[in-house]
Amino acid sequence: MIQVDRKQFSRALDLAAAVVASRWTIPILGNLKVSANGVLRLEGTDLDNWTCAEMPYTGDAGDFTLPQPRLVRSAINTAGGDTVSLKPDEGAAVRLEAGKLASDLGTLPADDFPFPDRVGIEEFGATLGAGELKQLKRVMAAISTEETRYYLNGVCVRHLSDWTYRFAATDGHRLLVVDIPLPDADGVIPNDTIIPRAWLNLVMARFARTKDGVRFSYGRTMVPNKEGPTLPLQAGGTRIAMRGDLDGIGFSVTGKLVDGKYPDYHRIIPTDLKYFARFRRADLVQAVHAVAALNIGKYRAVKLTFPKGKICCELVSADLGKSVFDIEAEHDVPKDVEHIGFNGRYLIDTLQALQGEEVVLQLNDSAGPALLTDPTDTAFKAVLMPTRV
Amino acid sequence: MIQVDRKQFSRALDLAAAVVASRWTIPILGNLKVSANGVLRLEGTDLDNWTCAEMPYTGDAGDFTLPQPRLVRSAINTAGGDTVSLKPDEGAAVRLEAGKLASDLGTLPADDFPFPDRVGIEEFGATLGAGELKQLKRVMAAISTEETRYYLNGVCVRHLSDWTYRFAATDGHRLLVVDIPLPDADGVIPNDTIIPRAWLNLVMARFARTKDGVRFSYGRTMVPNKEGPTLPLQAGGTRIAMRGDLDGIGFSVTGKLVDGKYPDYHRIIPTDLKYFARFRRADLVQAVHAVAALNIGKYRAVKLTFPKGKICCELVSADLGKSVFDIEAEHDVPKDVEHIGFNGRYLIDTLQALQGEEVVLQLNDSAGPALLTDPTDTAFKAVLMPTRV
Repeated sequence: MIQVDRKQFSRALDLAAAVVASRWTIPILGNLKVSANGVLRLEGTDLDNWTCAEMPYTGDAGDFTLPQPRLVRSAINTAGGDTVSLKPDEGAAVRLEAGKLASDLGTLPADDFPFPDRVGIEEFGATLGAGELKQLKRVMAAISTEETRYYLNGVCVRHLSDWTYRFAATDGHRLLVVDIPLPDADGVIPNDTIIPRAWLNLVMARFARTKDGVRFSYGRTMVPNKEGPTLPLQAGGTRIAMRGDLDGIGFSVTGKLVDGKYPDYHRIIPTDLKYFARFRRADLVQAVHAVAALNIGKYRAVKLTFPKGKICCELVSADLGKSVFDIEAEHDVPKDVEHIGFNGRYLIDTLQALQGEEVVLQLNDSAGPALLTDPTDTAFKAVLMPTRV
Repeated sequence: MIQVDRKQFSRALDLAAAVVASRWTIPILGNLKVSANGVLRLEGTDLDNWTCAEMPYTGDAGDFTLPQPRLVRSAINTAGGDTVSLKPDEGAAVRLEAGKLASDLGTLPADDFPFPDRVGIEEFGATLGAGELKQLKRVMAAISTEETRYYLNGVCVRHLSDWTYRFAATDGHRLLVVDIPLPDADGVIPNDTIIPRAWLNLVMARFARTKDGVRFSYGRTMVPNKEGPTLPLQAGGTRIAMRGDLDGIGFSVTGKLVDGKYPDYHRIIPTDLKYFARFRRADLVQAVHAVAALNIGKYRAVKLTFPKGKICCELVSADLGKSVFDIEAEHDVPKDVEHIGFNGRYLIDTLQALQGEEVVLQLNDSAGPALLTDPTDTAFKAVLMPTRV
């Protein structure tokens, strides 16, 4: 029998169940693997990502699996009590007790659970604090969700200089780039390694408010030796992992990389743009939201024109009519650049990623890419492709 | 031109738009009718229910319609500013201005809007405070959603004695009944008048926290005279309405009644039941929630057995196994009543409608209806049909 603090176990179930769907074609993947051996470990996987949550316990050693972790969590939290006890019964069932609740849950043998993915040989590692994770999150808005160009479904990382690394994401319509210093980075991560969206979402949702920092690792897994199960483990595929402490629970998420070639995005970052406009970021956010509200369905193109001392933000809805919203701006855009149009959603996303008080928009004409930057923050830049209006 | 306080107008849009869907086969029903004549009135309808919100304004008199009220609300709230101005432009468009936002919204003529349903000749009226609405809401959980027995899709009201009225709802599996004193009730409402669910939901969502009370009316509408448009209005169909003040906005919802015969539910309220069990309400709620959590999909039957001094609550999930949860209870149920089974969802709903500290469950056997009451509250009773387990 195993006894574990109910609140901690509940939190660990929630963390480990992040990759467990409630209905599976492969039934074992609907379960968590529970291993008690010095620490109590809960592991889940969807075969792309692996979660692992570790916490203290008292009682016997043993391996078993637990079905429907979200339902178990809901039941033990309803039942209350300080501790949860778990007792595997010859592999086919687990006796769960919490408060006055006693359940005999049908389950599957622990041996059916796939061999875990963990970074066994670290080739690159770095510590990220909440600040670094926040910087990384800024570019995630531009990750593509399109399946055909699957290599855009992630964030591209490359070493820039010294201890600074560049993270970029693009979906072909916009490109967001941020440079993050990682002073304790150690080892080598190949340039243009693509970190997948699903892993990033898992990591951000759980570690975003880390106090002690989290450890990012890149390296090879250790897998059973193909020559025989008794021989030493051998190196397997390349994985990334993020590991940190969450209120006393050691939690890690291991993921695969996107296997593809990231486009050379440096070529599309425009330089020497002719004109600029400088304005308060909140003003343009408000303007785009207000005109885009009066439109049915998806955000349409928002047209920006440049009267003296102003930017005029305009949207024409086929169903509802035309809406305009002027904001103050300092700019040198001449009259022959009649306007520039952007997808309203992309423009809002980009403005939100910028974060500062002011924004500088640079452009050449109605057709070429525009560059948006924060004059006080050289680490971040956004390139936005215009749309016809 | 009309000028109106932005926050008040936003609230009124929200209230009046409650019955307006964003896509309509009849386009005019996607609009609100705006009438400025001493007060500014916003009206909406889905032809079953009518909303009407009235507030002060400054400016000209006139009638027009406003498309997509929810989008307009979102836009003016984003744009900010103290006032909103509206200017109809020959019926085909409305000029909307709020803060720095200016929109020309395409719209439809006010004459296309249907003639409003209002209770013109009140045959019954009563004031309900937040307490009375809360009592009425208790029975709403049992309203049927099944279309075939459409007459169960509402709450049945009848005069009980003096100034007390009885409200009941049932879906054939459970029956909830509450007696509400309405001391200022005036006039006559026919027995077994059926108030529809949709109207009740509209009313409860908006008036539940009324401070000054709301006026319930039952009576005939006044409609244009069929003999000619210049002749006086004539009496139309029967309607119900609830009217009250919401932060300075006079708001009413008018609805049709369910046209059908309510079953004689008094016959199924059991009397002289042989056995009783008395327990803390929160205990059984916890027990049912805990065992029902360990089940995939809908709530299944929960089996109650009656060991000495206890009720044992049990659920067997086909996928997960058996869960049990005991609670303390005082009861005289003998051993030959082996168990009684209830749908877990209905049992929870009923326990939640009961509200008091303790519950008394009365029953005869495993097959007959059970009665659940609060020993301190004679106004409310619940009848629950058992299910086989």
